[in-house]
Amino acid sequence: MKGEDDVNTAMKDEEADGSGEKLLGFNSTEEQASGPGGQDSMWRNERYESVPLDVKGIDEDNSKGTRDSLNPQTGSALRKPRQSDERPKDSNLWPYFQDGLRRIDYVLTYHVQKPHSARKKKSRSCCLRGRNRTSSPAHEDPELAAQEQRLDYHEDDLRLRRDEFEENLREMGLEMEKEEGTKIPGVGFVKIHAPWEVLCREAEFMKLKMPTIKKYEVSHGSGIAEKVNMFIQKVTAPLQPKVVDSRTENEKHLSYPFSREKRHLFDLSDRNSFFNSKTRSSIVYEILKRTKCTRAKYIMGISSLLGSGVYTEAYPLHDGDIDGVHAETNDRKILYEEWASYSIFYKYQPIGLVRKYFGEKVGLYFAWLGVYTQMLIPAAVVGVIVFLYGCATVDDNIPSMEICDERNNITMCPMCDRACSYWKLVTACGTARASHLFDNAATVFFAIFMALWATMFMEHWKRRQMRLNYIWDMTGFEDTEVSHSHPRAEYEFHVMKKSLKKEKSPKTGNVKLTCTDRMPAYMTIIVMMIFLIFVTLAIVFGVVLYRVSIMTALHMSSTPTFRTNIRATVKTTGAVINLIIIIIMDEVYGAIARWLTIMEVPKTDKSFEERLIFKTFILKFANAFTPIVYLAFFRGRLIGRPGKYIYVLGSYRMEECAHAGCLMELCIQLCITMLGKQLIQNNLFEIGVPKLKKLLRQRKIDKKHQEELNKTLHRHEKDHFLGPFVGLNPEYMEMIIQFGMVTLFVASFPLAPLFALLNNIIEIRLDAKKFVTELRRPIAVRAKDIGIWYTLLRGLSKVAVIVNAFVISFTSDFIPRLVYQYMYSPDGTLHGFVNHTLAYFNVSHFQPGTEPLEPLHLGYRVDVCRYKDYRDPPWSDTPYEFSREFWAILAARFAFVIVFQNVVMLMSDFVDWLIPDIPKDISVQIHKERNLIVELFMKEERGKKYRNTIGDPSPQPLRSRPSSQA
Amino acid sequence: MKGEDDVNTAMKDEEADGSGEKLLGFNSTEEQASGPGGQDSMWRNERYESVPLDVKGIDEDNSKGTRDSLNPQTGSALRKPRQSDERPKDSNLWPYFQDGLRRIDYVLTYHVQKPHSARKKKSRSCCLRGRNRTSSPAHEDPELAAQEQRLDYHEDDLRLRRDEFEENLREMGLEMEKEEGTKIPGVGFVKIHAPWEVLCREAEFMKLKMPTIKKYEVSHGSGIAEKVNMFIQKVTAPLQPKVVDSRTENEKHLSYPFSREKRHLFDLSDRNSFFNSKTRSSIVYEILKRTKCTRAKYIMGISSLLGSGVYTEAYPLHDGDIDGVHAETNDRKILYEEWASYSIFYKYQPIGLVRKYFGEKVGLYFAWLGVYTQMLIPAAVVGVIVFLYGCATVDDNIPSMEICDERNNITMCPMCDRACSYWKLVTACGTARASHLFDNAATVFFAIFMALWATMFMEHWKRRQMRLNYIWDMTGFEDTEVSHSHPRAEYEFHVMKKSLKKEKSPKTGNVKLTCTDRMPAYMTIIVMMIFLIFVTLAIVFGVVLYRVSIMTALHMSSTPTFRTNIRATVKTTGAVINLIIIIIMDEVYGAIARWLTIMEVPKTDKSFEERLIFKTFILKFANAFTPIVYLAFFRGRLIGRPGKYIYVLGSYRMEECAHAGCLMELCIQLCITMLGKQLIQNNLFEIGVPKLKKLLRQRKIDKKHQEELNKTLHRHEKDHFLGPFVGLNPEYMEMIIQFGMVTLFVASFPLAPLFALLNNIIEIRLDAKKFVTELRRPIAVRAKDIGIWYTLLRGLSKVAVIVNAFVISFTSDFIPRLVYQYMYSPDGTLHGFVNHTLAYFNVSHFQPGTEPLEPLHLGYRVDVCRYKDYRDPPWSDTPYEFSREFWAILAARFAFVIVFQNVVMLMSDFVDWLIPDIPKDISVQIHKERNLIVELFMKEERGKKYRNTIGDPSPQPLRSRPSSQA
Repeated sequence: MKGEDDVNTAMKDEEADGSGEKLLGFNSTEEQASGPGGQDSMWRNERYESVPLDVKGIDEDNSKGTRDSLNPQTGSALRKPRQSDERPKDSNLWPYFQDGLRRIDYVLTYHVQKPHSARKKKSRSCCLRGRNRTSSPAHEDPELAAQEQRLDYHEDDLRLRRDEFEENLREMGLEMEKEEGTKIPGVGFVKIHAPWEVLCREAEFMKLKMPTIKKYEVSHGSGIAEKVNMFIQKVTAPLQPKVVDSRTENEKHLSYPFSREKRHLFDLSDRNSFFNSKTRSSIVYEILKRTKCTRAKYIMGISSLLGSGVYTEAYPLHDGDIDGVHAETNDRKILYEEWASYSIFYKYQPIGLVRKYFGEKVGLYFAWLGVYTQMLIPAAVVGVIVFLYGCATVDDNIPSMEICDERNNITMCPMCDRACSYWKLVTACGTARASHLFDNAATVFFAIFMALWATMFMEHWKRRQMRLNYIWDMTGFEDTEVSHSHPRAEYEFHVMKKSLKKEKSPKTGNVKLTCTDRMPAYMTIIVMMIFLIFVTLAIVFGVVLYRVSIMTALHMSSTPTFRTNIRATVKTTGAVINLIIIIIMDEVYGAIARWLTIMEVPKTDKSFEERLIFKTFILKFANAFTPIVYLAFFRGRLIGRPGKYIYVLGSYRMEECAHAGCLMELCIQLCITMLGKQLIQNNLFEIGVPKLKKLLRQRKIDKKHQEELNKTLHRHEKDHFLGPFVGLNPEYMEMIIQFGMVTLFVASFPLAPLFALLNNIIEIRLDAKKFVTELRRPIAVRAKDIGIWYTLLRGLSKVAVIVNAFVISFTSDFIPRLVYQYMYSPDGTLHGFVNHTLAYFNVSHFQPGTEPLEPLHLGYRVDVCRYKDYRDPPWSDTPYEFSREFWAILAARFAFVIVFQNVVMLMSDFVDWLIPDIPKDISVQIHKERNLIVELFMKEERGKKYRNTIGDPSPQPLRSRPSSQA
Repeated sequence: MKGEDDVNTAMKDEEADGSGEKLLGFNSTEEQASGPGGQDSMWRNERYESVPLDVKGIDEDNSKGTRDSLNPQTGSALRKPRQSDERPKDSNLWPYFQDGLRRIDYVLTYHVQKPHSARKKKSRSCCLRGRNRTSSPAHEDPELAAQEQRLDYHEDDLRLRRDEFEENLREMGLEMEKEEGTKIPGVGFVKIHAPWEVLCREAEFMKLKMPTIKKYEVSHGSGIAEKVNMFIQKVTAPLQPKVVDSRTENEKHLSYPFSREKRHLFDLSDRNSFFNSKTRSSIVYEILKRTKCTRAKYIMGISSLLGSGVYTEAYPLHDGDIDGVHAETNDRKILYEEWASYSIFYKYQPIGLVRKYFGEKVGLYFAWLGVYTQMLIPAAVVGVIVFLYGCATVDDNIPSMEICDERNNITMCPMCDRACSYWKLVTACGTARASHLFDNAATVFFAIFMALWATMFMEHWKRRQMRLNYIWDMTGFEDTEVSHSHPRAEYEFHVMKKSLKKEKSPKTGNVKLTCTDRMPAYMTIIVMMIFLIFVTLAIVFGVVLYRVSIMTALHMSSTPTFRTNIRATVKTTGAVINLIIIIIMDEVYGAIARWLTIMEVPKTDKSFEERLIFKTFILKFANAFTPIVYLAFFRGRLIGRPGKYIYVLGSYRMEECAHAGCLMELCIQLCITMLGKQLIQNNLFEIGVPKLKKLLRQRKIDKKHQEELNKTLHRHEKDHFLGPFVGLNPEYMEMIIQFGMVTLFVASFPLAPLFALLNNIIEIRLDAKKFVTELRRPIAVRAKDIGIWYTLLRGLSKVAVIVNAFVISFTSDFIPRLVYQYMYSPDGTLHGFVNHTLAYFNVSHFQPGTEPLEPLHLGYRVDVCRYKDYRDPPWSDTPYEFSREFWAILAARFAFVIVFQNVVMLMSDFVDWLIPDIPKDISVQIHKERNLIVELFMKEERGKKYRNTIGDPSPQPLRSRPSSQA
């Protein structure tokens, strides 16, 4: 669909332009002439060079003669650095141009015509001129020929656009080198280098903060604070990664937005290292985004060109190899050794280096993941303690003792119609004891603890983020950059279509997509989202039905072994089915969300991302939590009472909970979901699939030469085989769902933080490995915060409060126990609680046909059986009505929710208010830095004045000062 | 205390410095020589002048000869502008130096020695040298002499510090003129002028955004949006103030941080108007704050000097007179006519002009007040509608009909012990009908509406703030300026004291106040705050006791007229007493909060302000709302039941509510508090007190010459008589308390928004009048938002949700009615509701001695009386226990609170999320501006390159471009 549209557009463009080729003075024939002969050999377009002629000459030698002997000694031996800001390199495998001088800061790739079509290219010029001829002489089948011709047109158009774009780039000052089909057939590379002047100019525009030569002392607090700091550093020393770090340094370079007018402030002695590779590539990317390609109306920047297939890929290069013969020390290698390894899972991450290599956005993700994992440690410890407390007190628990006491001969009403018979409460002993592990007094404490923990985590992260912002010189950086607001290629395409339609209308104002244009998409999205939510609910209901029907069927069967294992079987299969469905639907929903967002045609990349995240979040969240919510709040609520059960689908009674509440089952479900989801998703999707993809990519090349090839591949070719960087959103999403598991139902499953912790320790290294070894280097994006994810986390931790309040008051037996103890108990203890929770039922009141088939199963005649509910006994004025106790307990439950919610919210807000967002020392440092800058400029002012007065033209001797101070 | 310490310090300083006078080369003797002769005449320190000599000569002429003939024609006729950036003025009354050229940007005043001490100054030099002599020859009493001598020392020290400070200021480039005791005896003025170079330099440091010459079109939306906009503008045209405004203009100047290196971007043709008077004064203030006075250690900036009495006042000048002969058109006059007038209360405020004249912070306050008042209009309308709905449905209300129905012969239990007798429910008919006005179904709707209204208001304000930020070029301005972090004078003083104490200790690091130092103050504050909260509670309890005891006493009295008016009397007096106490305690608490904050010695002005606001807010809020909270939630709850009442202080039964709930009384209390507080505070404190103060200030001068004097007074002298600007906090605080009244208990008093609206319409003009006519011009402070007040508003609107939930569910009868209707009513209507709410009491169960003295008051014997509660009847198994209905209704009440709170919070969050914080058009404009700036610089870059290439040294002809575009 879309591809065809593109072709049509391109053709229309050509018609509109007349012959764009001629207008641009495009010397394609020359290129084509050398094409067929050198389709497998390297050829370079002379126009992409702007180095001095002598260098170029050497280059040509190099490309002609020494192509096969690509040993590290070539090049550097032949020439010496001519330009002060360029440095020769002793390896062609390094990311440098053919001259070995200019660093490759960015690589664009495009699709090169296959030899098949290259052959036809010879007749391209005639085709272009004789467009109306139905067939070209070389082919018989006119239809095929027309199609091929159209493809040719398309190819030509792409080429023209590329050429124009590259021309514009060169006008911006970038230098380029082109390479087609050297080792990887069908792929052309455009290697881009940004010279020093361009870097300076763009750094000034981007207001990049760079370290100045002015140093100042970083105070680590005074007196005790310093000592504590020192002690902590000493203790954690073995946990620190072996990376040169500024943590221990006492001096920091004052940073200031780079400006050429203030260049005396900066240490520009080493121009190669002043801007590191990350900064260089992001500068180039900035230019690429901004540069217009006017051939296609409304289209601007590299993202549009990527979108319309003019270029296939665009990526910056990794710094070097991880291993192998050519691997010398580089940041990537250090990261590989000191970060992306499971063996050092206990160490801190070298966040500074991660940021230096991948940019702030990726750095913030890993810093966040680190903080989250770190914060999970206390949560996991407390969770384990709460669990152990449950284990320790299981024998002192009066309700379960009463249930297990054989002397309390309590006869319970049958669990199902007809097939089941009466049963003794003592058989539920095991479940009751197990329930106590998760449903005890410590659970309430733990829920409050976890709510505060979530707030603390948020606060801690805010502070950490602020600290990182300060260390990374991001203070004062405004996130709403121009770059974010570039329209996406799809949006522009739609706008173009619309403007073409509207050609007749007199208005010439800038066309944009209005609400009316988007209404169909919006409607589809709303309908689709509602439908998907219903699908999720239906799936849960389906699983419930499965359980109910299987349960009934098993009850019916007369095999005794079946009947004893009924509950366990049903629970386990149900949970596993749930898990499988969740994992499958997770992927499905992710794809649907993407599809819906594409249909919506958001204007900018930022809004695309936000809308996608929003949709994905809703769907995945509903998917993961609906079964759990059902289990926690709906199961066992709507079952009716003996003699008046509620039936679904004719004859299925709704699921009951075990005697000791549904908490136990909720717990099992949570456990299976968390463990299963993490294990399967980690192993299958995060390790398995990328490996498979990489294999597939490399399959395309000749398998035999692969090994040798690997050794001689250039950096940009190696990186070409790596997976593209698809953003951090899937990583964040996974973590958010996990955070939901940890906080939302933590009252029912105190081990959740432990599971999450274990998962995350692996997750960090897994992601690190992926970033360092499996993926192309991402473009360094500056960011001050984790954006929408923080909002989601905050929202989740708010929802968690109310959910936990409901879990404690409604799912657990905490409130009934409390009410019994303080309102009804004769002696203030829980003795008699079990009896109090059980209502009486006169067996003569069974609806006809639902009585048990074997009333004498227990060996004696039953007149009155018991069931778990607060209802009046059969002999009262209002038999089977909800009793006064029911209402009192309900009131207590609601009151608890209100108190819990508001107290915890208040405490959270208090903690939030108590902990300043900016760490004290950082705010002091920032203040100090500001003062220093003002001082610096005041001195400069005075210097100027002085110079003006005495007429001294020499620059202010600023650079000598720091050394005298140091 | 503190004064003495200062003297001591100063003396110590002198000892340490040896003779500071000599070191500084201070030619005081010369000054003193001219002192006695011209103590009443104007004398100027020659050193304060840095104008060219010829100008100075004329000045001297002027000061000597034409002092008494200060007519407007002097000066300008004599001289012509010599400096391009100075402009002659035809009035000496205008804020210019004596030369009539240089504008006074700031004025410092100080205390001048009285003639009495001036006499002694002649012997000052000998005193200084012969300090150890016990008496000076001129005086007999040695003690008095010593004291006077010490005073002299102090005066001298102040003078020395002033001189040093002014010397430093001159070094910073400021120009000064001194004037002592011309018309106002005892006051010396230092008039400060900032020359062009200083203004430019500081504007660059402060990163002031100034309009460039580059204009761009402001799009008002396309198509329909534009038309709607035009229509709205047309309709609201008569509401617009007659002020030249940029609202209607279609072009805006691109703003860019001022920089001398980019001076070609700005239109510097008129140097006088490029920086307006507000900007000039704030620039001077910035320098004043930064400039050090090293004579006193640790002391920095003007605030310290003001704190230690070196200067008495520091203020910028108003632009001109409001009326009178010399009044020509100036911003102040326009503001007076088009803003600070009650007659134009219906118009919009000229916020742009307010900001231009008073700065962003004041502008934001009035903008906020305007938005708040505007938003109150719909709230007031809906509130009135809700009230009218209550009025209209009062006759259809079944419960009040039942109460008023004579046929329902319900006998109620006595209202008090012994003195009261049984009464008939029908007598409560009036109250029941009145209650319905405020307690009906619409109330719930209104509470939800107001919760959403509060969110909308917040959102609307955020957007308005963003819009103002954009219009005022505050985008990109960072609030955490260096200036905020200057330590306060008191703090420095404390630190100095501490460092003096610690002299022996070896540490030389920067001393600061640690937690240990502050512990006593913190403890005092905590204790004091708790004590004050208890005082507030005690006051409320006292009023309750007053009501109870008066009620009992009145019941006891046998005069029948008394007894009929009992309730009305008690209610009214109670509410009035409450009101008076609230108003008195408001002032007391304000003073205490200030005292506590001073004791705390916060480091910076910002933290001082925050801490003060925090304390004041807590105290004033508790003061205003404790009586209301008592009435809403506690009154009538803890009364016990007939036969088992709860007694306080021996024999007083707790207050009961009227039959129809306490809502009515809550309503009366709110009404009286709101009206009374606003009327009294507005009239007395905001109009009366400032007028009185002004009178007192002017009293000090000779009354006879006052009128003539007024005409000849210079600008800085006139402004001296105005009240000092004390900050916006009291204004904000008043509004916040009002906002609390409007939102917190709005469920019980739907007319609150109307009252608030009426008050605010007056408040705006009142405050405007105060700012324009009564107060000195405040220093223009840049601000992006209203700071802590927004947080408080947000907090209040959150608390409002839960408070309203409780008011509806517990104070009103809404939930019992609902529960009755859907659970207990036989026919689904409210028929029988009154009977359902009344429990039965067997009169034989009265505690001995509490039976009514006149059991036959109603004319028949009563066996069973009724009381309002849900309890089991005497004949049940559990007599007088809470019944099943009680628990069911309690559960329903709690459930309602949960649902209401969470639904409203969710809706609020949804509204919050739905409405973008940045208005669409503003974000488009900001984006456009950014693009334009990048474009501008790219063009400049290319221009530079071009120039470099062809060697053209002329600057880029940027300034001509806009004119060709325009």
